Amino acid sequence: MLSFENDYSEGAHEKILQAFLETNMEKTSGYGNDPFTESAKEKIRTACECPDADVYFLTGGTQTNKTIIATMLQPYQGVVAATSGHVSVHEAGAIEFTGHKVLTVPAEEGKIRADVLQQFVADFYADGNYEHMVFPGMVYISQPTEYGTLYSKAELEQIYEVCKAYEMPLFIDGARLGYGLVSPACDVTLPELAKLCDVFYIGGTKVGALCGEAVVFPRGNMPKHFVTMVKQHGSMIAKGRLLGIQFDVLFTDNLYFEIAKNAITTAERVKEILKEKGYQFYLDSPTNQIFVVVENAKYAELSKQMKVSFIEKADDNHTVIRFCTSWATKMEDVEALAAFL
Amino acid sequence: MLSFENDYSEGAHEKILQAFLETNMEKTSGYGNDPFTESAKEKIRTACECPDADVYFLTGGTQTNKTIIATMLQPYQGVVAATSGHVSVHEAGAIEFTGHKVLTVPAEEGKIRADVLQQFVADFYADGNYEHMVFPGMVYISQPTEYGTLYSKAELEQIYEVCKAYEMPLFIDGARLGYGLVSPACDVTLPELAKLCDVFYIGGTKVGALCGEAVVFPRGNMPKHFVTMVKQHGSMIAKGRLLGIQFDVLFTDNLYFEIAKNAITTAERVKEILKEKGYQFYLDSPTNQIFVVVENAKYAELSKQMKVSFIEKADDNHTVIRFCTSWATKMEDVEALAAFL
Amino acid sequence: MLSFENDYSEGAHEKILQAFLETNMEKTSGYGNDPFTESAKEKIRTACECPDADVYFLTGGTQTNKTIIATMLQPYQGVVAATSGHVSVHEAGAIEFTGHKVLTVPAEEGKIRADVLQQFVADFYADGNYEHMVFPGMVYISQPTEYGTLYSKAELEQIYEVCKAYEMPLFIDGARLGYGLVSPACDVTLPELAKLCDVFYIGGTKVGALCGEAVVFPRGNMPKHFVTMVKQHGSMIAKGRLLGIQFDVLFTDNLYFEIAKNAITTAERVKEILKEKGYQFYLDSPTNQIFVVVENAKYAELSKQMKVSFIEKADDNHTVIRFCTSWATKMEDVEALAAFL
Amino acid sequence: MLSFENDYSEGAHEKILQAFLETNMEKTSGYGNDPFTESAKEKIRTACECPDADVYFLTGGTQTNKTIIATMLQPYQGVVAATSGHVSVHEAGAIEFTGHKVLTVPAEEGKIRADVLQQFVADFYADGNYEHMVFPGMVYISQPTEYGTLYSKAELEQIYEVCKAYEMPLFIDGARLGYGLVSPACDVTLPELAKLCDVFYIGGTKVGALCGEAVVFPRGNMPKHFVTMVKQHGSMIAKGRLLGIQFDVLFTDNLYFEIAKNAITTAERVKEILKEKGYQFYLDSPTNQIFVVVENAKYAELSKQMKVSFIEKADDNHTVIRFCTSWATKMEDVEALAAFL
Repeated sequence: MLSFENDYSEGAHEKILQAFLETNMEKTSGYGNDPFTESAKEKIRTACECPDADVYFLTGGTQTNKTIIATMLQPYQGVVAATSGHVSVHEAGAIEFTGHKVLTVPAEEGKIRADVLQQFVADFYADGNYEHMVFPGMVYISQPTEYGTLYSKAELEQIYEVCKAYEMPLFIDGARLGYGLVSPACDVTLPELAKLCDVFYIGGTKVGALCGEAVVFPRGNMPKHFVTMVKQHGSMIAKGRLLGIQFDVLFTDNLYFEIAKNAITTAERVKEILKEKGYQFYLDSPTNQIFVVVENAKYAELSKQMKVSFIEKADDNHTVIRFCTSWATKMEDVEALAAFL
Repeated sequence: MLSFENDYSEGAHEKILQAFLETNMEKTSGYGNDPFTESAKEKIRTACECPDADVYFLTGGTQTNKTIIATMLQPYQGVVAATSGHVSVHEAGAIEFTGHKVLTVPAEEGKIRADVLQQFVADFYADGNYEHMVFPGMVYISQPTEYGTLYSKAELEQIYEVCKAYEMPLFIDGARLGYGLVSPACDVTLPELAKLCDVFYIGGTKVGALCGEAVVFPRGNMPKHFVTMVKQHGSMIAKGRLLGIQFDVLFTDNLYFEIAKNAITTAERVKEILKEKGYQFYLDSPTNQIFVVVENAKYAELSKQMKVSFIEKADDNHTVIRFCTSWATKMEDVEALAAFL
Repeated sequence: MLSFENDYSEGAHEKILQAFLETNMEKTSGYGNDPFTESAKEKIRTACECPDADVYFLTGGTQTNKTIIATMLQPYQGVVAATSGHVSVHEAGAIEFTGHKVLTVPAEEGKIRADVLQQFVADFYADGNYEHMVFPGMVYISQPTEYGTLYSKAELEQIYEVCKAYEMPLFIDGARLGYGLVSPACDVTLPELAKLCDVFYIGGTKVGALCGEAVVFPRGNMPKHFVTMVKQHGSMIAKGRLLGIQFDVLFTDNLYFEIAKNAITTAERVKEILKEKGYQFYLDSPTNQIFVVVENAKYAELSKQMKVSFIEKADDNHTVIRFCTSWATKMEDVEALAAFL
Repeated sequence: MLSFENDYSEGAHEKILQAFLETNMEKTSGYGNDPFTESAKEKIRTACECPDADVYFLTGGTQTNKTIIATMLQPYQGVVAATSGHVSVHEAGAIEFTGHKVLTVPAEEGKIRADVLQQFVADFYADGNYEHMVFPGMVYISQPTEYGTLYSKAELEQIYEVCKAYEMPLFIDGARLGYGLVSPACDVTLPELAKLCDVFYIGGTKVGALCGEAVVFPRGNMPKHFVTMVKQHGSMIAKGRLLGIQFDVLFTDNLYFEIAKNAITTAERVKEILKEKGYQFYLDSPTNQIFVVVENAKYAELSKQMKVSFIEKADDNHTVIRFCTSWATKMEDVEALAAFL
């Protein structure tokens, strides 16, 4: 059965498994105090052109989001996010479980606009009762967004200006960062992105790893006693090498970016096919997620033949569905899709 | 200086102070285990026509909201509230601080519509990913609302139907309940309201008490070990008599409702005056809060002469302000307002 | 029936009720922004000889403890307290509910010894795994303690030295501070105490007020946006005047200390009587709580005739009970106790 | 350099890596909805002789402890643990971070005694103020304990009797369960253990896996909406296959138990060697952790030559250190230790 269900359907890039095999019986200390982790951190610092960066490896997206947000906010602060942001909707209240509110601003195709953000914060401080309200304490955006769209360099600069003006750290969720950076539509590089925020992560789970997200504090600005708080959140693993080895491999010889390109190439072909077949696009995404609006009956029919993702109801008769490619998608499967449709 | 700033500007009804004096040196046990508290509870049960009700006294509104909500929700649940609900906006994240998300639905003049609520919950369960989302676990509404408006009996019935269909307890914030119940526009009585929800409170702070809210679980449905959780929330006071005496007085000879009427009478006259003077009403409130839209310059001018409350910016040039009356408002002050305007 | 049950059995000092009556219909703004509160703060600053102190009024002891501790700790820190400390045992987990561990050290007669504290913290940092443990982030002591004992000035100085050496703020729970300060056994004054800690409170609930604790940050060191966090904790009351008026009265003409003396005088007489009757003291308390060990049968017999407090089982056949006096205890009741025993 | 530092120094058993390779490009759904996970769950049900068990895979020990405890407790409850329990000491306050207190009882060689537990709970309910205290809501023990000791079947039965009498679920932390079950000193089998508690986990991280703990609710008693709460805790991984494959391999052909035996065999030999060399044992552990007391100078000397773990100071001049073996320990390394010592 064909599957374009998501970008975490397969295991890991074979070079990662190879590295597991080669290093398996080397004894190392736990909790990330191992040479593989050290090496991976250094390679990421180099790739980001941030020699002073603090790098820390966590296991998955929700875990990373809640750990970062809870450790960077003061108790009286919440995190500002798009209404469609992953932390707002699909994390089972993980942020609130740490005691913090998610303050939502309207999004356009998954993106927050700098002027909307600016107005939101200005309105907060204009309210005579703001001491009785949750302070906007940091800003969360995703690159690419949950809808596969991208912030341009100019847009990131504008958002970061607002963040700095109001002393709100900017946090970029990069669960799919690889697929964003290698998209032809992307005009921002990894080192540039690192300069335009206070913390971000380079997603591994969706880009070739079995699990793992590399958190980067670009200017050595990791919160004090971060390790203790990671432990407190239940986000620490004993065999830190599991994450260290994977990112060490992914950041050797540019592998992370090389394999990310496959998702874009195959996604472009999927889009071509869907366009030929007359599908209506929900929005224009330049990365590895393609959203189309279909009649409910069509969705039901497709679901019998292949795996795609339900996203949301468009109206009573139509559904937004998603075709997703990844580092592992085979072009032959895409052509099989063409043949099928 | 004239003041229509809020409904908690004065101390307490004089009969309350009189009762403090009369009972002052009687020795009682602490934490609500005193005869005044017992008497007050019994009178409230009678007023609500709920002989099996659990009644518990807390100190203020935010404290009551967070204690009730946190003790009635399961960890995977959030509370559904209007976007304009007090718990959504003006409680400094007190609900989230207990680990729970506030799930917002659009409001009209402060009110949630039953069909909007029904759709919201139906959409939740229709989402294939709902296990990754916060479950709607209870519903919070205010009677009267933060905008002074009232739910009709039919509206409450419809909302409660939805609540029961989805097993979501209904919680009615009655911080200003007295002002709602005595409004001529109100078609629901206290005993009826008690039947149409799972928990509510009768606000004292804004209706004649120095402090205090009487929480009512109409059918003896107070959460197990509620007292321990009240202590855990820091919501318990040692001299429970402080609250018991006040509610005992307020529920003797119908005092609570009698004094509430003054707020409505004076508010009606304020509305009349404002209408005569050509003020533009923001909405039509039948209780003790009156919202008008004025030019910013007008607001600045008024502020020099009297105390009214800023509510929100209407647009760049206009402001929504509130005139508020209470149990303590003197008609002579209202006429002074007429003279001034 | 005679009662020596606790120090919160009566209402408030009559001058407080008088002040309620006199100020009742004055209109003031809410949330502590009223002239009574301002006046009370200033009087407390004067009494503490801390012109730069931040003063804030909260309602009760547990509420104050959890609000102070949670707003002064970092997420990776816990509060160090005696195993018998109120926050360790009798607050229903209020501290843990805010996400922080209570780290306990052994106490002697309710008191922490400076050398024991020093060793505890030194051991923490000596542990190779301390990054996986809760950091000692502040120290909580009570003056007088839960057992009515007092820290001497020298002891406070020694404890504060340890606190400063390890950058742990010292928090003194003064729920019964008045009874400590006026005890002949006390060699520390209020201004001296204010210099020997980072935050403390002057208990009102147990010393003449209906409710209320005055939190003092002696050197203007109140946490940033404390008001918002107070709101978030549900610790704020709308009619701040309720607390402001009470402390304004208590700190006028030395009233707080004058009325506290009555508790000491009556307690001394209770001790004399108990000694004459051959009761075995559990420990020697120089303040208003007197602990004796009685046979279980004796306790049962006493309980029929008067109210005293069960404290703990001494062994299978004996019970520790407490006789408690207060600002309101009448010497005639003490003599009635003598007659009875 | 020789290392007996811990039991998570190497990667994974080679059969696990082999399975990763063989299944790598199979497409599966995420979040544990994959056939590997299903197969692993079924094999564990069989091994436990619990056909109705709910099985769920989490990543590591602290994460598992906090997720289990927080989802099984009511807000007014805490977890009872040994003072030396992992949740009490070495989890950076992860339990408290979820809002719950850890209630400690004295331990002997890491073990809680049933009579001590019984007394602790009986004393709680005997306290007249227990409503102001944290209720003992569940009991946490480790098998083997943090000191490598084992509960006998009779001891588990006695503890479970107390738990059932007071309606406290019993939770057994089995981070090293394999090493316990295969110890000759162990008289309880996996199916027996499953009958003697309400939830336990089978540790993978320390017994052959790269990461992973298999949580078992023996009688289908997993908390309602557990998956949502796992997500909320940040404990869910997208590629659930990572855990499913590992446990599927470990529970094929008894592999988990077979490899655990190596830790015991090598530990026995280490003990023999240490005994021959005159080392003083801190206690007698029948599993894979060996604790000896050495002079500080000796510890310093050893540390230059090999990796062992600091456990705690014994006194000013002595240190408790640990030698640890695992599934991966080579007998040749043990003999090298003998040669060295």
